[in-house]
Amino acid sequence: MKLVTFAAGDAPRVGVADPEAGLVRDAGGLLPAGTGLLDVIERWDELGPVLAAGAADLPAVPLESVRLLAPIPVPRRDVFCVGKNYREHAAEFGRSGYDSPSRSEELPDKPIFFTKATTAVIGPDAEIDPHHGVTSELDYEGELAVIIGPGGRGISRENAYQHVWGYTILNDVTARDLQRDHKQWVLGKSLDTHCPMGPYAVTADEVADVAGLELETTVNGENRQLALVKDLIFDIPDLISTLSAGITLLPGDVLATGTPVGVGIGFTPPKFLRSGDVVEVAVTGLGVLRNRVA
Amino acid sequence: MKLVTFAAGDAPRVGVADPEAGLVRDAGGLLPAGTGLLDVIERWDELGPVLAAGAADLPAVPLESVRLLAPIPVPRRDVFCVGKNYREHAAEFGRSGYDSPSRSEELPDKPIFFTKATTAVIGPDAEIDPHHGVTSELDYEGELAVIIGPGGRGISRENAYQHVWGYTILNDVTARDLQRDHKQWVLGKSLDTHCPMGPYAVTADEVADVAGLELETTVNGENRQLALVKDLIFDIPDLISTLSAGITLLPGDVLATGTPVGVGIGFTPPKFLRSGDVVEVAVTGLGVLRNRVA
Repeated sequence: MKLVTFAAGDAPRVGVADPEAGLVRDAGGLLPAGTGLLDVIERWDELGPVLAAGAADLPAVPLESVRLLAPIPVPRRDVFCVGKNYREHAAEFGRSGYDSPSRSEELPDKPIFFTKATTAVIGPDAEIDPHHGVTSELDYEGELAVIIGPGGRGISRENAYQHVWGYTILNDVTARDLQRDHKQWVLGKSLDTHCPMGPYAVTADEVADVAGLELETTVNGENRQLALVKDLIFDIPDLISTLSAGITLLPGDVLATGTPVGVGIGFTPPKFLRSGDVVEVAVTGLGVLRNRVA
Repeated sequence: MKLVTFAAGDAPRVGVADPEAGLVRDAGGLLPAGTGLLDVIERWDELGPVLAAGAADLPAVPLESVRLLAPIPVPRRDVFCVGKNYREHAAEFGRSGYDSPSRSEELPDKPIFFTKATTAVIGPDAEIDPHHGVTSELDYEGELAVIIGPGGRGISRENAYQHVWGYTILNDVTARDLQRDHKQWVLGKSLDTHCPMGPYAVTADEVADVAGLELETTVNGENRQLALVKDLIFDIPDLISTLSAGITLLPGDVLATGTPVGVGIGFTPPKFLRSGDVVEVAVTGLGVLRNRVA
């Protein structure tokens, strides 16, 4: 199932999307009043079957007639992310001079977790604020993101996928100058609008082989990143088991898995984003996350 | 006013504490049903005067008869923190070998922001989980924390204190091995129970001169940290203006301002926390935050 959150009057609504037919169905009639997608994920055992059984009978409207928001417009806490989690990207980032332990092309021997603040989240087609005057080195990072279902601590590699509710696409927009100058990354990763997410929250049962997914990022149609999820240095079970060893994961937690080679600072000279640029991140079966820089 | 959140049956309740008289007053009768301290802070313009006018008439019970929780038991998002923000601590941390850009006693030229996950928050007198098997290098960091009132972006140094609702004490408990090995700090800073906070949320009007506050940390009664807030490298207006330049701050956001010299890894050999140790962090006028390591 491909779930969406869309704008409708004052309150966001949950919908079931059928991108092939170009339709979205308002799921409001099947859900308790005020239920957002975060609640749906938390109560999936109860509400998942309700949606599965009733979605086909819901009234449909053209997908293009609604304004999609991020699947989880206001996460319950900051978004977990992973740095340097594809080999060639670790090398390009190491060479770039933007890493805080200075230049090093060494691969990490443990996952490098960081976070993006909740207020950075925007949906598909929303504009990325270039924050002129705050940063002059705006960059993109296309990523596959995992959405946690059942929470927990001490989750083993073996059980990790039982805690994955589904997947979405995330653009880990980064202010490279702030990332470098402030040493720890959260500031450079968290400017308002710098966490585009979506368009769909896709349930895990639709993704037969997550390692086989292909991720592609384009800027103004020009290919910049192309990679397979199987090339992650630390795979999804590694990330979930490492993170949850001492931190209780919560339903709806979002974990972006890292970006492959081809970010702006990987080029000489760097290809930073400029006003008007359009960034598209596509992942097999998860749709395309498209955002323009304002 | 000193506000608290305390356990009472299923739902936490908001109270007004009078530590000198050893009393706490249940503010539930003055607030809309289900109002937590986060809501009170968000609606302070409306609810602050109600509490100020009515608190004295509320029924009082002995402070020691209630179990205090963290003032904000479930923050709206991760807690903002600042690394290396006192000169001598920056030097001890630089010498220790635990910093990620290797050994350096240089002072930061920009604030080093990082975060602690929401699930790490515990209240006064709650036990710190040593997470045996996950970390073997448990350390304390006593800190003054700012609680944001009116949110906003682009807050100037001059206006910064208009956005401060009040203050509390925070122990930035740290798994030093994880902090070092994972390069970015969020993992080593976020293990469950590693963000003790409280005992009170003290409104800014009770703190005439925040720079004059003294912070003291003891472990089993032995003095470890003693510093004045005026010795912060980046003061509270610096931190708020830098953070909010591109990130919208929200009511109830917690910002821990950094720890002074005297953490466990500042000693040779390091004085890591062990089961049974009792850590107390005291700040002038804000009370004492006391937690035992389980």
